[in-house]
Amino acid sequence: MQKGRLSTTKERLPLKHFTTNTDQCGSEILAEAENHEVKVKHKVTESSKMRCPVFYICFLLCLCLGLACVFCVCLWFNRWNGGFAWDGSELQFNWHPVLMVSGLVVVYGIGAVVYRIPLTWRQNKLPWKLLHAALMLLALILSIIGLQAVFYVHNAKGIPPLYSLHSWVGIAATALFATQWAVGMAGFLLPCSPMSLRKLLKPVHVWLGGSILLLSTAACISGINEKLFFSLKGNTTGSQPYSQLPPEALFANSLGVLIIAFSMVVLKILSNQQWQHPDSRPEDTAYTPLFQEEN
Amino acid sequence: MQKGRLSTTKERLPLKHFTTNTDQCGSEILAEAENHEVKVKHKVTESSKMRCPVFYICFLLCLCLGLACVFCVCLWFNRWNGGFAWDGSELQFNWHPVLMVSGLVVVYGIGAVVYRIPLTWRQNKLPWKLLHAALMLLALILSIIGLQAVFYVHNAKGIPPLYSLHSWVGIAATALFATQWAVGMAGFLLPCSPMSLRKLLKPVHVWLGGSILLLSTAACISGINEKLFFSLKGNTTGSQPYSQLPPEALFANSLGVLIIAFSMVVLKILSNQQWQHPDSRPEDTAYTPLFQEEN
Repeated sequence: MQKGRLSTTKERLPLKHFTTNTDQCGSEILAEAENHEVKVKHKVTESSKMRCPVFYICFLLCLCLGLACVFCVCLWFNRWNGGFAWDGSELQFNWHPVLMVSGLVVVYGIGAVVYRIPLTWRQNKLPWKLLHAALMLLALILSIIGLQAVFYVHNAKGIPPLYSLHSWVGIAATALFATQWAVGMAGFLLPCSPMSLRKLLKPVHVWLGGSILLLSTAACISGINEKLFFSLKGNTTGSQPYSQLPPEALFANSLGVLIIAFSMVVLKILSNQQWQHPDSRPEDTAYTPLFQEEN
Repeated sequence: MQKGRLSTTKERLPLKHFTTNTDQCGSEILAEAENHEVKVKHKVTESSKMRCPVFYICFLLCLCLGLACVFCVCLWFNRWNGGFAWDGSELQFNWHPVLMVSGLVVVYGIGAVVYRIPLTWRQNKLPWKLLHAALMLLALILSIIGLQAVFYVHNAKGIPPLYSLHSWVGIAATALFATQWAVGMAGFLLPCSPMSLRKLLKPVHVWLGGSILLLSTAACISGINEKLFFSLKGNTTGSQPYSQLPPEALFANSLGVLIIAFSMVVLKILSNQQWQHPDSRPEDTAYTPLFQEEN
């Protein structure tokens, strides 16, 4: 791994910088020998990185956990809460958790890590950027429809919208996500966007990406918790309250654990600098951190 | 910034690797010239990094937001929930949110970023490692007393412990934090711990650090939300329910926003690779990522 980094760095360090005080011929031979070594090492290391099985284990785990989250949230509202409809009733509300978990957590998380797949590193970046943007757009659309579902039900029932902390965090996550998508689209996909702007935006884009995951996970956990306190109050007909952990409570709590596990795997992939696209690694792009120009 | 990284990298690349096919004398002159250039560049760049005002703005913001979180959570339970006691009553419960927000979020977050202060980069690492470990121990102790407070009240009132998703996430965050502290202490502070173990542990320690922040933030948001639904039910005496956003609800929701803002600033500091301790940056330590040996 170190060799790979060294060789990549050497490619960025042509020896002509250091020939001023030395024998020109010797330095040329040196440069040639080094370049050859660099190319071989670079090829070997990049190839081994691209075959990196640990990334694919994490990616597969991410996909499986994501699918399990979507399956469990659908099953929860289908089995214990009457299924789905779009008529202003409680059944329309049921779309809210399904769409928010699917959009703001699962598709969002997969969209975030898809750009890191090592097999794509030698390919043209544009199709993968487009896939990243398309998945994020799908996640955003699902989230907006999920919000619409709950606004519609609140309106139909005369419940004030956006009063709970859960709703504040959820709406902040979606608003931040929409802004991130629009700015990301303009900054990284429009051909007229200058390289200096991209370098300035990159660290903010990465930081906000992680922050949106933090917000969406907190919104989902607080939402599941709130829904279970609303639904499982216990009554005289013998239904159990949340505190007795009936099957629905156990199932929905487990969905919360799956969401946390999914977010942690996404965070693992995003935090591993070895799995960053080579063009995005700081040793290759050396972007100017935000506000660095003030230094 | 790029210059700094180049020079740092060059220091790790003694030219003797590349002298086999070339003139020995030329390469020595070359190496000497390079070393001189490296030292000058390194000093200039590290100095400018250590003066980096953006880090200190973020660090100051982190401290201010942390203090605001602690102040607000104390004020919330003092003004609207009767203050504090340790007698198994509701007043003992009030210690739970205060200690969890202070320990698992604020002191934890400050403990995580304190190791990144650029002014400490040229100093002996050990005192800063000890400060990092001490702050984390303080955070852990506060969290454990905070858990004890709620267990005591649940026990006194005959309420089953650990049934809500909020409690599952909170206990998972504390358990993971305790494990992280113990493993971190053994791996990074015990002199007998081998360097190979440290290199293996480092990326896991960093990833779990971020994950604990994710879990603790989700636990706090769901806990504030749950508490407000419990407290603000509205009744015939004219007190307003949560849905009407009475002053207590607005205040506690704002506390939730402060916690999110604090976590985002901590994430900003942790995610900026330029603010990593030079000895911890991948281009300098080139640790072997977890399971990398399988590749």
